[in-house]
Amino acid sequence: MEQISEVMSSFIASLNDNKIVRLYENVPQGKRLRAKLILKIAKTSPDAVKLAAIVEMIHAASLLHDDVIDDANTRRGKESFNAKFGSKSAIMMGDILYSVAFSRLAEFPKDVAACLSNAVALLSAGELSDVELSKRFNTDRSRYLNMIYRKTASLIEACAASAAMLEGYNSDDFALYGKNLGLAFQIIDDILDITSSEKILGKPALHDFKEGKVTLPYLYMYKKCDEKDKEYMTTLYKKSLNSYESAWIKEKMKEFGAIERSVKEAKKLGYEALKAVEKYEIDGLREIITQMIERDF
Amino acid sequence: MEQISEVMSSFIASLNDNKIVRLYENVPQGKRLRAKLILKIAKTSPDAVKLAAIVEMIHAASLLHDDVIDDANTRRGKESFNAKFGSKSAIMMGDILYSVAFSRLAEFPKDVAACLSNAVALLSAGELSDVELSKRFNTDRSRYLNMIYRKTASLIEACAASAAMLEGYNSDDFALYGKNLGLAFQIIDDILDITSSEKILGKPALHDFKEGKVTLPYLYMYKKCDEKDKEYMTTLYKKSLNSYESAWIKEKMKEFGAIERSVKEAKKLGYEALKAVEKYEIDGLREIITQMIERDF
Repeated sequence: MEQISEVMSSFIASLNDNKIVRLYENVPQGKRLRAKLILKIAKTSPDAVKLAAIVEMIHAASLLHDDVIDDANTRRGKESFNAKFGSKSAIMMGDILYSVAFSRLAEFPKDVAACLSNAVALLSAGELSDVELSKRFNTDRSRYLNMIYRKTASLIEACAASAAMLEGYNSDDFALYGKNLGLAFQIIDDILDITSSEKILGKPALHDFKEGKVTLPYLYMYKKCDEKDKEYMTTLYKKSLNSYESAWIKEKMKEFGAIERSVKEAKKLGYEALKAVEKYEIDGLREIITQMIERDF
Repeated sequence: MEQISEVMSSFIASLNDNKIVRLYENVPQGKRLRAKLILKIAKTSPDAVKLAAIVEMIHAASLLHDDVIDDANTRRGKESFNAKFGSKSAIMMGDILYSVAFSRLAEFPKDVAACLSNAVALLSAGELSDVELSKRFNTDRSRYLNMIYRKTASLIEACAASAAMLEGYNSDDFALYGKNLGLAFQIIDDILDITSSEKILGKPALHDFKEGKVTLPYLYMYKKCDEKDKEYMTTLYKKSLNSYESAWIKEKMKEFGAIERSVKEAKKLGYEALKAVEKYEIDGLREIITQMIERDF
């Protein structure tokens, strides 16, 4: 992973701009899950590290812009880049990271470059779709799944597929692995917003519902509620919840098994991800699924 | 030009997202100067229209983000996209245009894709540099020229060079043409901020200086001022100027021939641009220079 950070820094250094270097030092590094995924699949390719660095740069750019769009002052418990340097710097730094990543991606074979850049187009469209869906109470499960596919899973799908291209595997198998992994990852993220404590998340629990995001457990809960409860649930949407209201939501979720059903769905996707690539017998692909699903932050 | 708009719309339509299509209808079309440049150079290439559409998409994306960063409520006299739909929509729409452009660019030969994506990295870095230079009174001519090279000329340089690649010309010659054309274009833009009326520009004259931008005519003027006038000029920096102060600046510029010298410099760059490609005897390259230099908005 250190090698990846070094390659990313060298990309930035090549711009010959001290201000950009200084700002870049404050871009959060994240868990490098996408890089790990690429390195697990493209084990022998000499270009895997470079591809992983490009993808982490794209991911970092998308988070910088996301935090501006979501007015987020914190990211994983720490002050966000936009809170520290202002929204404008975050927009510009995001643009720099995206464009540097694309210019390095242009050095790769066409199929790799097309695969990843298509995913970024889906990702950007997914961000807009996330904002749109958060405007009013969405009860349409397929719209939610399509949004998280674009916003989260498309890039992970492209990571797995492009790494497979580098390694000479069938990229469709790995695209399916990555897509299901990405969907499972986002579903778990959405569950943790409900089940984790503020201390672990760095933001209050049930934050998503207040922000207008009707995630999978809420969709299950809503479907199971009777008309009266449906109506009450709607009144809580986008509200700062008091302890009674939070408790009511959590109680109803418990009654309907909304969390368990969502976890089960994520695990099913994880299983399908593994099935798509089991014949390759690659060490570590199961661990990535497990790490992404059985995490608490 | 209509064909280019159609190709751009088809790129957007392929995202299958009605909201994006509706927002895209409100993205200003601009004068398509970069597209015209590409079509003039790559006269016989079947891919020229597609490349021109990609470049116009990149240019539109950069303007959407620029207007957010500059807090601009108008663009060429009309309400800006961010003023109409909010900064967040402008950020997201810019990201969508950039990423769609890059994903289409990945279908081009590597050298074309690398040339244009490198330019976008310079462009993004140039935007940051513009903001940095606007923080305090900059009197360093080379820093100003380096900034306008990155922010404006690099993309025009890449347009000319990549079109030359499509057509099988020596791309270095056309890069030099594009670079000098781009620098001249920006210098003229900066001059028009001083000499044009508010009615034509859609913003008050001397707007740049108020925004912290010390452009070429100001650099000339400052250099020629005596110590007392240098000091007075500095007190006017970033200020809303009253009519006396505006008149003083214009008077001093007249006294030192700051506008004439800047125009002369732009024309010299235009001449050097033409010299770089004269042996190709391509119709219209001179007209592009003339149109860009002898314009009033």
